[in-house]
Amino acid sequence: MKALVYHGPGNKAWEDVPDATIQEVTDVVVKVDTTTICGTDLHILHGDVAAVTDGRILGHEAVGTVTAVGDAVGSFKVGDRVLVPAVTRCGRCDYCQRGMPSHCRTVGGVGWIFGHLIDGTQAEYVRVPFADTSLYHVPAEVTDEQAIFLADSLPTGYEVGVLAGEVRPGDTVAVVGSGAVGLAAILTTGLWGASKVIAIDANKFRLEKALEFGATDTVAAGPDTVAEVLAHTDGLGVDVAIEAVGYPETLQTAAALVRPGGHVANIGVHGVGVELPMQDLWIRNITLTMGLVDTVSIPTLLKMVASGRIPAEKMGTHTFTFDQLDQAYDVFGNAADHQALKVIIQPA
Amino acid sequence: MKALVYHGPGNKAWEDVPDATIQEVTDVVVKVDTTTICGTDLHILHGDVAAVTDGRILGHEAVGTVTAVGDAVGSFKVGDRVLVPAVTRCGRCDYCQRGMPSHCRTVGGVGWIFGHLIDGTQAEYVRVPFADTSLYHVPAEVTDEQAIFLADSLPTGYEVGVLAGEVRPGDTVAVVGSGAVGLAAILTTGLWGASKVIAIDANKFRLEKALEFGATDTVAAGPDTVAEVLAHTDGLGVDVAIEAVGYPETLQTAAALVRPGGHVANIGVHGVGVELPMQDLWIRNITLTMGLVDTVSIPTLLKMVASGRIPAEKMGTHTFTFDQLDQAYDVFGNAADHQALKVIIQPA
Repeated sequence: MKALVYHGPGNKAWEDVPDATIQEVTDVVVKVDTTTICGTDLHILHGDVAAVTDGRILGHEAVGTVTAVGDAVGSFKVGDRVLVPAVTRCGRCDYCQRGMPSHCRTVGGVGWIFGHLIDGTQAEYVRVPFADTSLYHVPAEVTDEQAIFLADSLPTGYEVGVLAGEVRPGDTVAVVGSGAVGLAAILTTGLWGASKVIAIDANKFRLEKALEFGATDTVAAGPDTVAEVLAHTDGLGVDVAIEAVGYPETLQTAAALVRPGGHVANIGVHGVGVELPMQDLWIRNITLTMGLVDTVSIPTLLKMVASGRIPAEKMGTHTFTFDQLDQAYDVFGNAADHQALKVIIQPA
Repeated sequence: MKALVYHGPGNKAWEDVPDATIQEVTDVVVKVDTTTICGTDLHILHGDVAAVTDGRILGHEAVGTVTAVGDAVGSFKVGDRVLVPAVTRCGRCDYCQRGMPSHCRTVGGVGWIFGHLIDGTQAEYVRVPFADTSLYHVPAEVTDEQAIFLADSLPTGYEVGVLAGEVRPGDTVAVVGSGAVGLAAILTTGLWGASKVIAIDANKFRLEKALEFGATDTVAAGPDTVAEVLAHTDGLGVDVAIEAVGYPETLQTAAALVRPGGHVANIGVHGVGVELPMQDLWIRNITLTMGLVDTVSIPTLLKMVASGRIPAEKMGTHTFTFDQLDQAYDVFGNAADHQALKVIIQPA
């Protein structure tokens, strides 16, 4: 089979590799019908993720068709159309049992293993461990081009942003950064009844998309960001500030936007430390959350997509075939220039 | 009447001042039978709290007897024995109505006003605004020397540490800093069924006290703190780390102690920013909380003290009279040297 293989920082190739096969009785093999690229894949290619070594097949999101099934698998059979989420879960460790497979102890202490600790989904086929507890059936009403964004980006915006931030009816929510994951948060904030959703970004295209995704207001990122956002509130700040970028400045902005008693939900993947102004924050009864997605909200999100309430397909702006993967990485890696959000990648 | 008056950084005097009187119909006047000193009073004397100006009577904790009652007060009458908590609440603003009077908008945007924005409790008498919604009746079974620590230190350890940290049955809890507030957290952690409570401090006396207050284990603060605490867990860290000091290093230690999915509850009052290693933390699904006490747990704590389950009197190690206030500040300000926790101050 062919797959996109990592060969050290800056190097990757769509090349022949051994076929994906059943290795454990709990595995299935899935033919990849649709995959995409995540910001984390870009981090890997920059050499930021030491655990990813030369020879690893990249990618951790897929929609596909089951082609082989291990003897212990009970919920999936050959021919089933499935969603392969970013997180793999054993279902039996303490973290899985408390609904936090982001830290599944069995698969490696972190639930994100595809394209990280095992071969990934940017390939013609992928081996999926612990299939019964990790895969989801995709309802007929949900297209591949919708379901693919439920593998990672939509659950990330929803779980690490909206749910961790505890958005509640009537809340004013600011989303710092309106890239794919920020937009995913915006798209799902309405589920919890926010009264105002303020999108913040330096990019005009993204702010336009934010309005389309459900933001009620937009603020261009700049020196007056905090004052402009506060002007949309009673002056005390927002109830929930969702950080969807991953830089010190953006997390500091999020912390400056939130009212006493509010929540800062950090989604961003950070590469360096962040100085928090604890001399100002300690007294403000603020809660700061952060973390990897669990993908446990996928059943909820599948229902919302199936019913038409979440237009997940809006996340995909560009479509490529497997042999155009280089081009797909280029477009996604320079998303703002290309007016791109997420890319869709499928067999030719 | 006499009171302890702030006269700029480093200066205070027990001196004659105008009598405390009813100014609003919702006020009462309380004769102070017992007061104490808080770490915040030391910060004020160091000149760290700009809002406290020359002439302000210090102190925000008292047990006393009502001596005058405003026309609109319904729940208290002359002669009632009352607890004056650190936080004053109007009871009607949005923050009070959601149980967060720490940010009562009516009294100043912050609920802590005694010895801060209005005259305080280190005095023979104190005017208490919004008496109906702020004061508590003290049950006969609870002594002054117990109740005084329910004005601030015990609710702070309990609300900002144990409750905000969401301690749950079976949890392993580390408390970084075993001064008065750290010990208050230790004393109340058992209410939520922690299986292990690990006290951390550089001071041997405090660690001994910690065991007496309910800690199951102690760790001397030092270069191996993190490794030693982790050795008390399954290697992944504690469920809840409570920070009760207020330095960058102690908050960083608390963050290093907590397992994926755990809580860091910051109680400490910080004077400078804190660099958080977000490059390590973002993926760990950690929740960081911080804030001023609401004192809304006082009814709970009064019941636990009355029933004998919380020996609040253990917090008081030294007793002084009003005319010994200088000495009391000296002992409390150098608590570790004097083997002091909290001081009790009463009329001669």
